Amino acid sequence: MLCTSLQDVEKKGKSTRMINIKRLASSDSDFDTQLAKLTAWEGVSDAEVNQRVHDIVHSVRANGDQALIEFTNRFDRLNLTDSSQLEVSKEELKAALDGLPEKERVALQTAADRVRSYHEKQLQTSWDYTETDGTVLGQKVTPMDKVGLYVPGGKASYPSSVLMNAMPAKVAGVQELIMVVPTPDDEINPLVLAAAEVAGVDRVFRLGGAQAVAALAYGTESVPKVDKIVGPGNIYVATAKRMVFGTVGIDMIAGPSEILVVCDGQTDPDWIAMDLFSQAEHDEDAQSILIATSEEYLSQVQASIEKLLPTMERQEIIRTSLVERGAFVLVTDLDDACDVVNKIAPEHLELSVEDPEALLPKIRHAGAIFMGRYTAEALGDYCAGPNHVLPTSGTARFSSPLGVYDFQKKSSIIHFSADGASEMGKVASVLARGESLTAHARSAEYRIKD
Amino acid sequence: MLCTSLQDVEKKGKSTRMINIKRLASSDSDFDTQLAKLTAWEGVSDAEVNQRVHDIVHSVRANGDQALIEFTNRFDRLNLTDSSQLEVSKEELKAALDGLPEKERVALQTAADRVRSYHEKQLQTSWDYTETDGTVLGQKVTPMDKVGLYVPGGKASYPSSVLMNAMPAKVAGVQELIMVVPTPDDEINPLVLAAAEVAGVDRVFRLGGAQAVAALAYGTESVPKVDKIVGPGNIYVATAKRMVFGTVGIDMIAGPSEILVVCDGQTDPDWIAMDLFSQAEHDEDAQSILIATSEEYLSQVQASIEKLLPTMERQEIIRTSLVERGAFVLVTDLDDACDVVNKIAPEHLELSVEDPEALLPKIRHAGAIFMGRYTAEALGDYCAGPNHVLPTSGTARFSSPLGVYDFQKKSSIIHFSADGASEMGKVASVLARGESLTAHARSAEYRIKD
Repeated sequence: MLCTSLQDVEKKGKSTRMINIKRLASSDSDFDTQLAKLTAWEGVSDAEVNQRVHDIVHSVRANGDQALIEFTNRFDRLNLTDSSQLEVSKEELKAALDGLPEKERVALQTAADRVRSYHEKQLQTSWDYTETDGTVLGQKVTPMDKVGLYVPGGKASYPSSVLMNAMPAKVAGVQELIMVVPTPDDEINPLVLAAAEVAGVDRVFRLGGAQAVAALAYGTESVPKVDKIVGPGNIYVATAKRMVFGTVGIDMIAGPSEILVVCDGQTDPDWIAMDLFSQAEHDEDAQSILIATSEEYLSQVQASIEKLLPTMERQEIIRTSLVERGAFVLVTDLDDACDVVNKIAPEHLELSVEDPEALLPKIRHAGAIFMGRYTAEALGDYCAGPNHVLPTSGTARFSSPLGVYDFQKKSSIIHFSADGASEMGKVASVLARGESLTAHARSAEYRIKD
Repeated sequence: MLCTSLQDVEKKGKSTRMINIKRLASSDSDFDTQLAKLTAWEGVSDAEVNQRVHDIVHSVRANGDQALIEFTNRFDRLNLTDSSQLEVSKEELKAALDGLPEKERVALQTAADRVRSYHEKQLQTSWDYTETDGTVLGQKVTPMDKVGLYVPGGKASYPSSVLMNAMPAKVAGVQELIMVVPTPDDEINPLVLAAAEVAGVDRVFRLGGAQAVAALAYGTESVPKVDKIVGPGNIYVATAKRMVFGTVGIDMIAGPSEILVVCDGQTDPDWIAMDLFSQAEHDEDAQSILIATSEEYLSQVQASIEKLLPTMERQEIIRTSLVERGAFVLVTDLDDACDVVNKIAPEHLELSVEDPEALLPKIRHAGAIFMGRYTAEALGDYCAGPNHVLPTSGTARFSSPLGVYDFQKKSSIIHFSADGASEMGKVASVLARGESLTAHARSAEYRIKD
């Protein structure tokens, strides 16, 4: 019996344990604990990284271009001798775009047009209103002057990210958009330069790492000081951004990318498997989770995964990601699924169900919601229109997709009439004296009529 | 001659050097450098503070309520024995409000009503639109679930800050607003509790410092984990907020408060002097700057300052602030004044001029703009309606007043029709293959019709 049993397990293991994806059920008594453990992520910079970044930032701040040239030559194996070599010329950007195959150039332009069109709807405008006593209150909206865009080099150098980060800033009306991208061994993806040209990036510098962030935050002889820095990067870039936060604005510090698919069991399991792959192929830390209402459907998707994985170019990355961080979650019904969604607050949520509209009111936290069986997340990554820079690791509980609003800021407008100032002066006086701030009180009291 | 000269200087010093405020002129060749030096501020936490905060945060995270009781007993000199003592009851809040003198209660209520009314205009709503092929794109706006509000104890415990931080969250629709306030030696300003009651704060805990921030960020047996933490605090609080940023959202880390007054020389110099005092009385690091178009007017305000300062309760704080960080800036005209304003990007800007509307289009960066001679900043601090939590230290270049938008977040909505998915699948496929992300490409290609 024992032998047979072990053989059974081994046999079963060959088919199902090839890609051993964790299985959870919302009815498990310790489900919340399991879920928290599954989705936990802390991108902590260790003391050594902090110290190295600190040194780089201070060196760039103190020595400007000279430090930039030294770090860039060292880390990117270049031989720059003059700071004029730091900048990529406008002509190089144009040449990169002109040099693309027709099909790619058109696709890039189509994506850019759709992204621009969606983001134009996010533009906030100034408003004011007048009270009965003539007092005017309002909110003035203005774009930032200068913004810096970090674009990673090497394998994570995505032209779509250039579009997604640059276009909201341009739509907001940012005057000068300055991109930095490292060119290790003097190599750069021409699609990245072409995307910069399509998106209307104003200047591009061949800089990366903490030194690029420092240059944008403090300015050097060549690199303008910006007001905000956005864009993804490795741990050095993220640490540098956190360090300069306050001197400049920064976007969220992103964790690994994740997808959460909710399926009613009626979508072709191959489609769902491929949707899970499309997240998992980003990197080993990426997270793909499927929620479904039946064990049987989960097993169908498992079978699709096993069938399709050997055909994938990035199968080793996908396999590691699915086994280490992926999961299948069994829920009792679609309402239950929405509860799990809100606990996870996913970056990408696919509602691959018959009536996604019915679920939408129950979804409180998600970066982007992909509705229905046709809306593959990959469409949103490139050309649907909405931004693909989204809050990761549960931060959708308190943050939003990158948008035009990230490049606009507000000033309150207060214009008291003489009557209004007199009436409100009395209220302010009482409250200020309650706080023992008598200069506040007396400043208000000067405006009270006799 | 030498003796006479020295005597002259000494004599002159007695009248004008009593309150020796720096004088700059925009025509100075090194004006930009002087201005940068004047307004420079870096609230850097030193390594020791970082380490202490790190230890406190980790202790609260590991030991929950027990750590909270220990730190609170130690730092606030209390004798709590049970975690139930950490919370201030609803009855105590009600009693604090009922116990206020009529005048204060009415003033607080009036201020709250005006703040609510203004902030209701900031509410963002969801939107969507349908493309010709039936594809729906949109943006869903939702409030955060839980928000934490830090309120300082002791001398910086301001009821107006409770209103200004709490009300935008409540207007946004935040379900649970949790306030923490330290009660050193078991003392608390009843106005602070009354303001919490007026603003609709849901729960209040007698906690302060880094331990309060840690409790809100990670949750303990008694204190709920929140999604975002707002509110001012000392260097320990600010350091803790920066440390937990990412686990929860935080508001801007505020520097000292500042006012910049632009005057055409026609406002009563006593009014302007008192407006400058109202900022300077906050603390020695506060910054008050006056920009005017004539030397003569600057001297009139100087005379008013010397006349009025001896009558002020907080004259030592005001004097130190004005001498150490204050300045008078002479400009050539009001256009020139606007240029200086944009370089400073002040927290509070008073346009104490005949026609402030004419200047408004030229102002690109300011937290709040107080228009005309009647609009004292103090009115905005308490009861005008707009928020008094504003970006300091030049951060108005990239950030905004605290608002309802800080407690709402967005989810992108994408719902492709079958036709839309087929067309866009082709674009996504080209771009994904350009990035060597073939799972992305194949996921999109599944949705392309034959």
